[in-house]
Amino acid sequence: MDENLNKIIAFILETDKLKNIYRQTYVTGEDRTENDAEHSFHLALMTSMMAQYSNEPIDILKTMKMVLVHDVVEIDAGDTYCYDAEAAKSKEEREVAAANRLFGILPEDIGSEFRSLWDEFERRDTPESKFAAVMDRVQPLLLNVATNGRAWKEHGIYIDQVRQRIAPVKEGSVVLWEYLNGLIEGACEKGYLKK
Amino acid sequence: MDENLNKIIAFILETDKLKNIYRQTYVTGEDRTENDAEHSFHLALMTSMMAQYSNEPIDILKTMKMVLVHDVVEIDAGDTYCYDAEAAKSKEEREVAAANRLFGILPEDIGSEFRSLWDEFERRDTPESKFAAVMDRVQPLLLNVATNGRAWKEHGIYIDQVRQRIAPVKEGSVVLWEYLNGLIEGACEKGYLKK
Repeated sequence: MDENLNKIIAFILETDKLKNIYRQTYVTGEDRTENDAEHSFHLALMTSMMAQYSNEPIDILKTMKMVLVHDVVEIDAGDTYCYDAEAAKSKEEREVAAANRLFGILPEDIGSEFRSLWDEFERRDTPESKFAAVMDRVQPLLLNVATNGRAWKEHGIYIDQVRQRIAPVKEGSVVLWEYLNGLIEGACEKGYLKK
Repeated sequence: MDENLNKIIAFILETDKLKNIYRQTYVTGEDRTENDAEHSFHLALMTSMMAQYSNEPIDILKTMKMVLVHDVVEIDAGDTYCYDAEAAKSKEEREVAAANRLFGILPEDIGSEFRSLWDEFERRDTPESKFAAVMDRVQPLLLNVATNGRAWKEHGIYIDQVRQRIAPVKEGSVVLWEYLNGLIEGACEKGYLKK
C-alpha cells in the first residue's frame, strides 16, 4: 500500500470539516450562510475565469491551489469575521498552529508545497497571492449584494469598513477594485451599508 | 464597464445555486448530505494532490477546471443518483439543454472553453477526463465509507453496483482502482454494502 496515498486521503477527509465551518455571508436562495468549502469552490472557479483581470500575469494553477487551501486552517482555528477586531488579535497564532498540524498530515513534498502556498497567501507579496486576496474579497461582496446586504445589515457594517476591507484589491486588480467600488456605492444607496 | 466581466460575474452568481443542490452522500460530522459546490471543491483539491496517480500524464489545470464545472448542468437538470436507472434515461437530454443555457451566460471565449471541458468530461476519452472521472468516483466512496455506509444502507446498494460504478476508475488510475476495490471489500465485510 502506498503510504503517501494514505496521507493524501487522510488530508482530504480532514478537509471535509470545511463543509461544517460557516461564514457570515448568506448563500443566495437559501436561508443559511455559506461554509468554507463552498466559498473555496467559488474562489477556485472565479480564479479560472478572471485571471485576465490581474494587474500582473499570474500562474493560474498555483493561484487555484492557493485559494483551495487558504481557509483550511479554520478547521482548527475557526472562522474569524473580517470585521471582528477582537478575534483578529489571536487569529495569527491560532492559524499558524493549525497550519503546522494540517499540512503535516500530507506527504512531505505535497505538504511543504501547500504550506508554502498558504504562507504566501498570508504574506500577500506575490502576483498570485495578491490576486488570491482579490478573489477572497470579491466573492463575499458579490454574495452580500445578491442577498440584499443581509449579513452587512445584521452586523451593522459601515461603507468605510468595507472600503478598508477591499483596499488590497487595488494591488491585485485595478479593474476589480473599480468594479467593487461601484458595487458598494450602489449597496450604500440601497441601505445595505451604513454611511 | 467591461461587458465580459459582467457576464463572468453573472455566471459566478448562477453557480451559487450549486450550494443548494444536494447529493446522496453524507458529509462527515453533520446530519446532512453534501451539495454540488462542496463536492466540486473536494474534487479540485484532490486533483491538485493526486495527479501523480493518473495512468497517463495529465494537464492538472485543465483537469481542475473540468471538475469545477462538471456538475453545473445540475442547476437546471438536478442531481441524478448514480444508481437510479430510471432517471438516467432522460439525463443526457436534460443536461445538454442545461449546458447550452449555462455556458452561454459566459463571454464567448471562456464559455466555449468550459463547454468543451464539460463535453470532454462527458465523453471520457482523454487522460484529463478519465482522471476527472476517477476523482468523481473516489470522493463519494471515501465519504460513504467515512460515514459508515449511511447513503448505501439507505438505498440498499449492492457491492456489485459499486463495482460497476467504479469500473471506469481503472482506465484513469490503476492505483486508485486497486485502492477502491480494497475499500469496498472492507465496506462489504462491515455490512455497509449488500453481497
